[in-house]
Amino acid sequence: MALKTNETTFVLKEINNGFQIVADGRLLFHHSVQQPMLYVGYGEETINMYRGNFDIHDYVVERIGLRYVDVVQTENGFQLSFSKFDGGPTDLEILLAEEDGKVKLHFTKRSSEINRLWLRVQADGKEKVYGCGEQLSHFNLRGKNFPLWTSEPGVGRNKNTYTTWQADVKDKAGGDYYNTNYPQPTFISTKKYYCHVETTAYADFDFRNDEYHELQIWDIPKYVLFETAESYVELVEKLTDVFGRQPELPDWTYNGIWLGLQGGTDTVQKKLDLALEKGIKVGGVWCQDWQGKRITSFGKRLMWNWRWNSDEYPNLDEKIKEWKAKGIRFLGYINPYVAVEGDLYETAADHGYLALNEKGDIYLVDFGEFYCGVVDFTNEEACSWYKSVIKENMIDLGLDGWMADFGEYLPTDVHLHNGVSAKIMHNAWPALWAKINYDAVSEAGKLGEVTYFMRAGYTGIQKYCTLLWGGDQSVNWSLDDGLASVIPAALSSGMTGCGLHHSDIGGYTSLHGNKRSKELLLRWTDMATFTPVMRTHEGNRPDDCFQFDGDEETLQHIARMTGIYVRLAPYTKDIVKENAQKGIPVQRPLFMHYEEDNNAYDIQYQYLYGRDLLVAPVYEEAATHWTVYLPEDEWVHVWTGKEYSGGYTEVEAPIGEPPVFYRKNSSYKELFESLTK
Amino acid sequence: MALKTNETTFVLKEINNGFQIVADGRLLFHHSVQQPMLYVGYGEETINMYRGNFDIHDYVVERIGLRYVDVVQTENGFQLSFSKFDGGPTDLEILLAEEDGKVKLHFTKRSSEINRLWLRVQADGKEKVYGCGEQLSHFNLRGKNFPLWTSEPGVGRNKNTYTTWQADVKDKAGGDYYNTNYPQPTFISTKKYYCHVETTAYADFDFRNDEYHELQIWDIPKYVLFETAESYVELVEKLTDVFGRQPELPDWTYNGIWLGLQGGTDTVQKKLDLALEKGIKVGGVWCQDWQGKRITSFGKRLMWNWRWNSDEYPNLDEKIKEWKAKGIRFLGYINPYVAVEGDLYETAADHGYLALNEKGDIYLVDFGEFYCGVVDFTNEEACSWYKSVIKENMIDLGLDGWMADFGEYLPTDVHLHNGVSAKIMHNAWPALWAKINYDAVSEAGKLGEVTYFMRAGYTGIQKYCTLLWGGDQSVNWSLDDGLASVIPAALSSGMTGCGLHHSDIGGYTSLHGNKRSKELLLRWTDMATFTPVMRTHEGNRPDDCFQFDGDEETLQHIARMTGIYVRLAPYTKDIVKENAQKGIPVQRPLFMHYEEDNNAYDIQYQYLYGRDLLVAPVYEEAATHWTVYLPEDEWVHVWTGKEYSGGYTEVEAPIGEPPVFYRKNSSYKELFESLTK
Repeated sequence: MALKTNETTFVLKEINNGFQIVADGRLLFHHSVQQPMLYVGYGEETINMYRGNFDIHDYVVERIGLRYVDVVQTENGFQLSFSKFDGGPTDLEILLAEEDGKVKLHFTKRSSEINRLWLRVQADGKEKVYGCGEQLSHFNLRGKNFPLWTSEPGVGRNKNTYTTWQADVKDKAGGDYYNTNYPQPTFISTKKYYCHVETTAYADFDFRNDEYHELQIWDIPKYVLFETAESYVELVEKLTDVFGRQPELPDWTYNGIWLGLQGGTDTVQKKLDLALEKGIKVGGVWCQDWQGKRITSFGKRLMWNWRWNSDEYPNLDEKIKEWKAKGIRFLGYINPYVAVEGDLYETAADHGYLALNEKGDIYLVDFGEFYCGVVDFTNEEACSWYKSVIKENMIDLGLDGWMADFGEYLPTDVHLHNGVSAKIMHNAWPALWAKINYDAVSEAGKLGEVTYFMRAGYTGIQKYCTLLWGGDQSVNWSLDDGLASVIPAALSSGMTGCGLHHSDIGGYTSLHGNKRSKELLLRWTDMATFTPVMRTHEGNRPDDCFQFDGDEETLQHIARMTGIYVRLAPYTKDIVKENAQKGIPVQRPLFMHYEEDNNAYDIQYQYLYGRDLLVAPVYEEAATHWTVYLPEDEWVHVWTGKEYSGGYTEVEAPIGEPPVFYRKNSSYKELFESLTK
Repeated sequence: MALKTNETTFVLKEINNGFQIVADGRLLFHHSVQQPMLYVGYGEETINMYRGNFDIHDYVVERIGLRYVDVVQTENGFQLSFSKFDGGPTDLEILLAEEDGKVKLHFTKRSSEINRLWLRVQADGKEKVYGCGEQLSHFNLRGKNFPLWTSEPGVGRNKNTYTTWQADVKDKAGGDYYNTNYPQPTFISTKKYYCHVETTAYADFDFRNDEYHELQIWDIPKYVLFETAESYVELVEKLTDVFGRQPELPDWTYNGIWLGLQGGTDTVQKKLDLALEKGIKVGGVWCQDWQGKRITSFGKRLMWNWRWNSDEYPNLDEKIKEWKAKGIRFLGYINPYVAVEGDLYETAADHGYLALNEKGDIYLVDFGEFYCGVVDFTNEEACSWYKSVIKENMIDLGLDGWMADFGEYLPTDVHLHNGVSAKIMHNAWPALWAKINYDAVSEAGKLGEVTYFMRAGYTGIQKYCTLLWGGDQSVNWSLDDGLASVIPAALSSGMTGCGLHHSDIGGYTSLHGNKRSKELLLRWTDMATFTPVMRTHEGNRPDDCFQFDGDEETLQHIARMTGIYVRLAPYTKDIVKENAQKGIPVQRPLFMHYEEDNNAYDIQYQYLYGRDLLVAPVYEEAATHWTVYLPEDEWVHVWTGKEYSGGYTEVEAPIGEPPVFYRKNSSYKELFESLTK
């Protein structure tokens, strides 16, 4: 007997000793006594944090297949009552229903002894999966498992490298392929469905098995959602219907690069003058030290008391107006912590806005030679206060943007106002932090005018974060933590519904001997030209990093590339708008528009920039030529005008001419042709 | 109702929803529905080997507490029938009985779906445990888990060190704290019992929990054995009653050092002449290249075709006689593999003596730039043949000893003659290899005259291995892989019933920049003087290692220390005899004779050498003084005659005067006093 509801897009098909759940022809679940779709159990985790790097272990005391199930048809689906053993009590219940074209599995725990769940989604050997937030080492996630826990991404992120080894030994900070600021328990399958697990608990999605994806969750999720589509474009549209979409970027963005400068009003003015004199198009001046700085052994760090530091930046209020008049906006910096030395800490402490430790005292987090309180975003009053800090101290001063840093450090032993375990709130924090920013900007009536960029993310970030940035890359050419890593990062976050991405030009972290070379800065500039936002960063140790004003050639290079960025802006605006309206990411994997091309699914270091441009950044040192994969189409090489059809091809790739191709029959053809002029 | 058998040393005491098993007042097991003593389940392991280094992962599909038990009293104990579910079928049965004063749990699997078992032995927070074979990093095993799988111990064995990182990156060979050539699923608890699990499957003993030790076994063990005693001396005696004991060392051992020499007859003769001329007492000349050598990128390697190489060693048959007449024996080298280039390989291949791959072809193991067949010790005929190789090619030639190297490399995908999975036979291999040697020597009528030394071990090695050596230490001062690591190695193998231990003087492995210094060689000589056998090794890269003949001072130093070794021989012989008769190890932890001294249980870099000497080797570079812990007693510092009572004390510790103390009221007092003369 095949159980089927007429209204729904799915069928529950009875098989020997079990059933299968099929949605629009896709086999999602297979359940039988021999091969249960669910395992539950009990684990005792240990979670240790050191400056945003988490050491997480689970001792799985019990893990049991829920082999026995009782199926009852309901009005719009089925009630599945699972038991560990034949005739035993129900341990877990799933209400399976169709909702707005989606298949929803609503979970209810019936046994108190369960705190772990492993759900097996049917797979096949050829299937590929993408998403899971912002993944920096792997775009296709098949063949690996991905712990989903927002954290520092790590320095080096590859145990074979010297940088990672040193970072591990000295700071427990080396990281690994799965560490990311922005994880999310959501993936897209090449079977053309998305799967989203609604939970903020620690999760680990394991894509190593040919027959199934095993989704491990350290809690019973609220629900699991599936939706199918006929194309990837339709799929991301449906996905972002659920999560929300980023608004468009403010128009001033397209005036030029956001120069990351530091050192006070005079220094910034001088560097800006030089940039403008050299013909660099500048859209913004981004001064993270607008609120003061401190020096630690890691490098230059900020003061973390979120108000204008007029010692460091005399006259800034006037300067902001002056720069704005020239089309150059001022951007600052904030994060969800307040340093113990500041007056904001004092206010927050007095009003009970800070998270507490188990003794009921204010919890202090070690950020590397300085300590901060955690603003408790589960406390409505604390949120209101922090929004007022943003509105009064930042927006009212004239800031048109900022880095909304951090979000991934919430310690798991902190005590929060809402009484929920910090182990559950940890992954929720990035979206809460994004929402604070979003609401502050909204309440100030500045949405669409003021923007902010974040590295931390999780489910819900899509709606509340105006722009992602790829976090703190190492200032080198490493695949896992250098220039290249930014590309899968943009693609995977795009497939998770976050279609606006950019990165620190030149990378950020210079530790353990890494120093930013001129060549790296130039190549990174070339790549950033074909992202929605160009922004430089001096790095954690500016003296160890080649800077935008490092020499005449660099200044001229950036002048030329920002010119190209500005000329491309009409196209960029259109694809940013498409992201805002439909959730189709600005940077797209090749397969999104070339579904029939098998090769396209494995290309993780190239991207389509909108529908009509293909970008293949040069990510190796000393390269003169570059091999590019082109899906079957008519392509024109931007710099030479030479035409190509599909396949692998090698092109000359000098600095300043990153391998970029446009579609010959694009309606933006003239615009693309103008780029070289 | 307390169930109790009159005949036995244990009681099974009924408690609410379960029972407790108590042996002579020691609570061994607590079982209740809430806290079962047993978990069973199903795992899918992946095991990859690279040159003796194993990468082992388990995917635990299911792990279930056997909460429900039916207890039936039997003639000499109880039958415990465990079920997963109340009223469910029996999954596992334990026959609990007393046998010769031991508590024996005999396991029978009743469900075919089980291939993993986790047994919880009750513990308390203060308890300490020792043993588990030869452990190089930790003597007290509490606070860590110990995978028990014979393998290369690793180069560096500490992920924080450069050596380990390089070894991992280049050769997957860095290892970790638990990697050892000689693991064994047997431990001794400070509750004064031993626990032995009879299995050769992969196991992992986890001593991290305050309440219990969790013994994981990738199979259902045949039985688990417990025995209690009133003292540690009694406990090791009982333990070695079970496993057997090493015979005494041949008398010629005590003639002096075994010089590890290479390079052919002339070179060896010259070096020996020099040694004798300088007054070095020599008991043996150990030439591992007696059967030829090859050069690889690792260093000098051997030919692995086990017969006299008369090109390399012309006239060796006569030389052996000549040396023997002077009291100097000749020792060689063999291991359980035959290199493809040799005639032994050909013979073995022709007769079907070699293990096969899944296709039925001979399985070739990569030993680093050369390949070998695996002599199949599950084939009686292969064993007879290999014994004949030892008897005819080695003993008949006049060899009085050899390094019986390897034993820990058996690949898990090899197909064996007895049809048992290589995953089960892997850990059995060292004892099979030991037995080949033992039987060959026995059959030649040479037990007590011929000796051999091994690094690989497992249950059963106690009886069949005449002497352990600590494996391939790095030629440095590292705690985990240098000089110091040999001390916990000797102590833990001693607590597992293997009481005869020694090591390569100066260590063996010089890779990734490690070079053996003169100071290291001298300090190692000092330590070896107070072990049953002194033996040098040129190392894997002799040119990177300071050698015994490196300079005049070293030669004189070794002459002096071998003199001390020889003078101490009457005492050494007595304690070696004690080991042979009672299994009391030659090198003993301080607590073995000072049970009331709490500090003694945490001292892992000192040892009692027999009852009356305390040795605290200097294991740090450039030390001039050394802090020693002395249990409460009357101690005399060997070199100064100064008297000490208990506590921490600092003594001068120049090279040549390792911190060694004797008990003032020892019957060997005069002998000890003579050492400095």
